[in-house]
Amino acid sequence: MRVSSDARVPRPRAGGAHESAAEESRAYFERARSLVEAKLGELVPPETTEPISVHAAIRWSLFAPAKRFRPTLLLAVGETFGASAERLLCAACAFELIHTYSLVHDDLPAMDDDDLRRGRPTCHVKFGEATAILAGDALQALAFQSIAEDETLDPGLRVALVSELARASGTPEGMVAGQAHDLAAESLTDVGESELELIHRRKTGALIQASARAGALVAGACKVELEAVTRYAFDLGLLFQITDDLLDVTATAADIGKTPGKDARARKATYPALYGLDAARERARSVYEDACAALKGVEADTTLLRGIAELILERRA
Amino acid sequence: MRVSSDARVPRPRAGGAHESAAEESRAYFERARSLVEAKLGELVPPETTEPISVHAAIRWSLFAPAKRFRPTLLLAVGETFGASAERLLCAACAFELIHTYSLVHDDLPAMDDDDLRRGRPTCHVKFGEATAILAGDALQALAFQSIAEDETLDPGLRVALVSELARASGTPEGMVAGQAHDLAAESLTDVGESELELIHRRKTGALIQASARAGALVAGACKVELEAVTRYAFDLGLLFQITDDLLDVTATAADIGKTPGKDARARKATYPALYGLDAARERARSVYEDACAALKGVEADTTLLRGIAELILERRA
Repeated sequence: MRVSSDARVPRPRAGGAHESAAEESRAYFERARSLVEAKLGELVPPETTEPISVHAAIRWSLFAPAKRFRPTLLLAVGETFGASAERLLCAACAFELIHTYSLVHDDLPAMDDDDLRRGRPTCHVKFGEATAILAGDALQALAFQSIAEDETLDPGLRVALVSELARASGTPEGMVAGQAHDLAAESLTDVGESELELIHRRKTGALIQASARAGALVAGACKVELEAVTRYAFDLGLLFQITDDLLDVTATAADIGKTPGKDARARKATYPALYGLDAARERARSVYEDACAALKGVEADTTLLRGIAELILERRA
Repeated sequence: MRVSSDARVPRPRAGGAHESAAEESRAYFERARSLVEAKLGELVPPETTEPISVHAAIRWSLFAPAKRFRPTLLLAVGETFGASAERLLCAACAFELIHTYSLVHDDLPAMDDDDLRRGRPTCHVKFGEATAILAGDALQALAFQSIAEDETLDPGLRVALVSELARASGTPEGMVAGQAHDLAAESLTDVGESELELIHRRKTGALIQASARAGALVAGACKVELEAVTRYAFDLGLLFQITDDLLDVTATAADIGKTPGKDARARKATYPALYGLDAARERARSVYEDACAALKGVEADTTLLRGIAELILERRA
């Protein structure tokens, strides 16, 4: 069940050379994705079960090609602090279910009105708006159900995870708050650096941070470790958003599986728009360094976590 | 904290005459509503907190005049089996939060497209579609958070309640499944009696049934009691829907706080449409009798629960 045979130590390759932290992390992502997708397949009702439209829409959105960043981060943090993948997997999937519901709802015509997501027509384009709304609603309920019914974890831990996930998803500090703020601040003239960071911290950062914290909670990490992970994941969330903004400018639709250049056309607040490309790239590197620095005081081997930060810094999709 | 000073015994009035079970229940509803609304006010972020639009929309929808049927049922069942209102209140509010999110999303233009709800413009009419979608999403997260963080209950009970609420809200057996089925079967020609009952069982019945079961779970009811409550609430949910359909035909907008006659215009499957008014009224009475009969084997005094069924049978709004 373990994702990596030894997630804490960068293993020598067959040839004897050491993998870089980013290569190690890339391989970890691959293995984590298989585990997460298999478990998601068990958690979600089959497409042959009524209501077929909703279950087809859920599976369409959930099983599109995806990085599985949040569940992989949860697994990586949890394994770093000694938890088994088996005990981490339901919580990891719950974060992916919440993330997927948010994509389905954010893509709706009344929200960001997007046609392309994870390389496919968006859920409402394929199944209609009503079904997309319902699919998102059902995904959210399923996320909390999956944690509540995870018998590998004791109930005290399950309620802590439900609380962590709910706070990161909702208002006033979570994802819904960030999306509302983002919609309200579509014009560049409204937004300065600190407001842009606040939007991202909530819209994407809160869930990323909570997924890392959830991994640490399952592993029974101590207070110092939990605080280090919280700071690391805070920076990682910011890094993820800056590189997302950069990709919106520089990538093609085939690279990123969604409509590129859309932020600029919508005159949305982004890092490249506020600072220009070069300064946004510099900001990404400095946030990457902050993320690695946050892990300095931790006794466990954090190679994998530093490698994940490096992967995000250098991502092309 | 107790809703009723003695919920189990119909108390003599000042004049010495006994209140009827329905009158007793009416008074119980009033007291329960005060308690639930006060607690909801604590659980929901204030309207002055960012994002103000979402919090205003949440409060607009949540604090419109409402019966608070689900939380009152939860309190009544829980008190019948010996739990204190204090231990029941967070769970009760969680059911009202889920119910309110479902109203907000169901009223959206892509779904039932309704302008009037609880006597007011619907959430999307007042705040726009994007904010209404987000308000519903946040209400759902808050429901699960409220249970997870309820320190009056031990964690094992909290996870059982999260599971119960999530299953009743989602797919394949819960509210989302019912709404999807209902949208798919808008034309009368599609729907017979058994399908109509299946739709209602999921769309409204699942959450009503789960709220009653949640009250029994908090009270630590035994298996026989839990089964009796499950059957009672199954019938109560059906009764609620039949009388809802009847009111759609016979009531005014001022009575019911939403647009009447809408089901007929949309040629939606309803009891009066399938059977005619008189037969639908007869069906309501027989379901009411089933609900009362389900409680027969229970040792606790179930006067209050039978009174609630009577209130639903005779409701005018």
